[in-house]
Amino acid sequence: MDAMKVGLLGLGVVGGGTWNVLRRNGEEITRRAGRQIEVVSVAVRDVAKARARVGEDVRVSDDPYAVVDDPNIDIVVELIGGMTTAKALVMRAIANGKHVVTANKALLATHGTEIFEAASAQGVMVAFEGAVAGGIPIIKAIREGLTANRIEWVAGIINGTTNYILSEMRTRGLSFEQALKQAQKLGYAEADPAADIEGLDAAQKLTLLASMAFGIPVQLDRAHVEGIATLSAFDIVQAEHLGYRVKLLGITRRCNDGIELRVHPTLVPVSSILANVEDAMNAVMVSGDAVGQTLYYGKGAGEEPTASAVIADLVDVTRLHTADPGNRVPHLAFQPESMVDTPILSIEDIHSAYYLRFAVNDEPGVLAEITRELSLAGISIGSMIQQPPEQGEATLIFLTHVALEKNVNRAMVAIEAMSFMRSTITRLRVESF
Amino acid sequence: MDAMKVGLLGLGVVGGGTWNVLRRNGEEITRRAGRQIEVVSVAVRDVAKARARVGEDVRVSDDPYAVVDDPNIDIVVELIGGMTTAKALVMRAIANGKHVVTANKALLATHGTEIFEAASAQGVMVAFEGAVAGGIPIIKAIREGLTANRIEWVAGIINGTTNYILSEMRTRGLSFEQALKQAQKLGYAEADPAADIEGLDAAQKLTLLASMAFGIPVQLDRAHVEGIATLSAFDIVQAEHLGYRVKLLGITRRCNDGIELRVHPTLVPVSSILANVEDAMNAVMVSGDAVGQTLYYGKGAGEEPTASAVIADLVDVTRLHTADPGNRVPHLAFQPESMVDTPILSIEDIHSAYYLRFAVNDEPGVLAEITRELSLAGISIGSMIQQPPEQGEATLIFLTHVALEKNVNRAMVAIEAMSFMRSTITRLRVESF
Repeated sequence: MDAMKVGLLGLGVVGGGTWNVLRRNGEEITRRAGRQIEVVSVAVRDVAKARARVGEDVRVSDDPYAVVDDPNIDIVVELIGGMTTAKALVMRAIANGKHVVTANKALLATHGTEIFEAASAQGVMVAFEGAVAGGIPIIKAIREGLTANRIEWVAGIINGTTNYILSEMRTRGLSFEQALKQAQKLGYAEADPAADIEGLDAAQKLTLLASMAFGIPVQLDRAHVEGIATLSAFDIVQAEHLGYRVKLLGITRRCNDGIELRVHPTLVPVSSILANVEDAMNAVMVSGDAVGQTLYYGKGAGEEPTASAVIADLVDVTRLHTADPGNRVPHLAFQPESMVDTPILSIEDIHSAYYLRFAVNDEPGVLAEITRELSLAGISIGSMIQQPPEQGEATLIFLTHVALEKNVNRAMVAIEAMSFMRSTITRLRVESF
Repeated sequence: MDAMKVGLLGLGVVGGGTWNVLRRNGEEITRRAGRQIEVVSVAVRDVAKARARVGEDVRVSDDPYAVVDDPNIDIVVELIGGMTTAKALVMRAIANGKHVVTANKALLATHGTEIFEAASAQGVMVAFEGAVAGGIPIIKAIREGLTANRIEWVAGIINGTTNYILSEMRTRGLSFEQALKQAQKLGYAEADPAADIEGLDAAQKLTLLASMAFGIPVQLDRAHVEGIATLSAFDIVQAEHLGYRVKLLGITRRCNDGIELRVHPTLVPVSSILANVEDAMNAVMVSGDAVGQTLYYGKGAGEEPTASAVIADLVDVTRLHTADPGNRVPHLAFQPESMVDTPILSIEDIHSAYYLRFAVNDEPGVLAEITRELSLAGISIGSMIQQPPEQGEATLIFLTHVALEKNVNRAMVAIEAMSFMRSTITRLRVESF
């Protein structure tokens, strides 16, 4: 059979990895896919550098439209990242009847609905395994492997940079700033680390996972997002004393009134598998009513792990491109006409257990006042630590049972107004799955 | 679109679970699959009992051929287990042009080559996600999710019964017999537990995983299989002292001269994720040259977890049945004409690290003689424990570095002939991945 002809937009980290792996494993990939997958054209900024890398048989251009408009190309692989240009190129490729493979989570979490609609109308596939959790085939698992299930929740460590920083803070007692610097030195964090440490990257991935788990449109703007920049080493140590480890989790859960969609530092039991996912590794846990809890673990970023996902998509497209479009795997797991508009819950309306740390004057009656206020708000306490006072300041830490967040907020406002409070309350969420 | 019409052979644990989940989640499954998946016919031993369960709208027969020969049926789901009848029914269904879904690992690990050839010739699919690791979509991960990779090895806890027994032996200090009895009482082990505890069940699953990882024919008879019945609680404790946990692993690895295919109790580092897979849970680790190590975790057996896999296969078949057969996912991951005949290595030719326990007379020179013999065979020692002697008997435990098994055998024969030996050597393999 004829080779599938691929045009590559971008030859950076993931693009370069895709090129390398396709060359190194080309023979084995062909044995699986049933036909050759051949990169025939690349678009890059630096043509001379790319030419040196890909040789004379591949078209090299600095105009990405030369790729997406090339009638010879079956699949366009978008790996330039960013939003505006990437979107225009992807839409043009679709309009030209080409299949698209992309690892661009920001693009799909923002414009996914429009892009998938256009693709469905044109009868082409937009595959994006590389957009979530690198080489871990988590999109395939949710979209195809767990189709029997009513999915209850998905919770994952889906940002390797922050997981590395949290691992270093815990095991080596570093501050956030120290751990971040080290992550940057080792290439785990970018020079501008904002998207990672503020949780946006995780929120983009979680948004896609939630759509596929529950059949809802992508709604990044409805996600509640907290990063790890304000997390203190002290709380990580206290959590450990209580039997918990702090992870930046993306959590999406189906509740009676809607769907929770939230990214924030989370205490998980030390003995849980998620707690033991260390360094820059990713893991996603999926709970379904039939299968129970399943977990998927691996490298969530990097040149070849992400290339592994991109090429898996290329093989999928190669295997499926002759199939009747109406019978292919739907982009967001559910048939487009079967998507539902279950609302995303406000963070005020979620249920969670909580870690609450109070810095208070070391004086009588404080504990009684705090516990009374929590009790008034309907919050019951699971366990407590009181630290020995220093310079007249005592530290109280509570782990609560599951409560409604707006009740916790109400109690926090009331307690923070009390005269014995030395500073604002530190609040972290706790999930035991 | 018309419903996909399913005929169910067997309404036992997995068949009953499949029926239940299809009914409970039918609406959500249809939203994903794009059309209804409807059980129209079941074949069972006890017709009256089945009739009471499935109602009047489903055909119930005690003749399975009434199902596989029914021209109205698109997909036959074989869940009766066993070999001869199951094979005849599956082959007849294929000959009738029907797709087949089965969870019958024994059947496929033994007759897979013949069955898949027949299916390819007829242009039908034989899907078997439920045959390995219950609800974990591990077959999909290897066959589709990791297609970019040259797979290096697969290692898994793929038998829940033995993992439960080993967990109980370790955490509660039970003997194998006590733990087995408890497993039987709780329904984790069958009345005749031989296939589980002797490793055959794991070997059948591993055989299928190896075929898909390396593109080789199924060769159950070439697998090396050791169970856990002779494992002593003492060695589990000693392993823990050395920083290892004992798991029954299925391991298949690509080496220079061939492929390792082996099931046996294995020491894995306590801090590894595999070591922390407890009770009846399963987990499979897959190492690929691009993706690195990935892991898939979940319930490996049971009514609804296995039903989850069976129904995922039904949805896959529903989505793909209109696709050109030549472009579907190949049964064993590689195109039939691209399978290779890489030999399976004899256990003598594998490489592993080893745990060796010697019961010896408490007399001078013993340690020197043993270490000299190991050294002569080219085996180097990583660490050692010497237990205080009891009644003139000393216990020596060595952890070796990686060695060729036949060299270890040679040294063991030589040492066992020595006069200070009180009993045969206990040998367990050690893998650190």
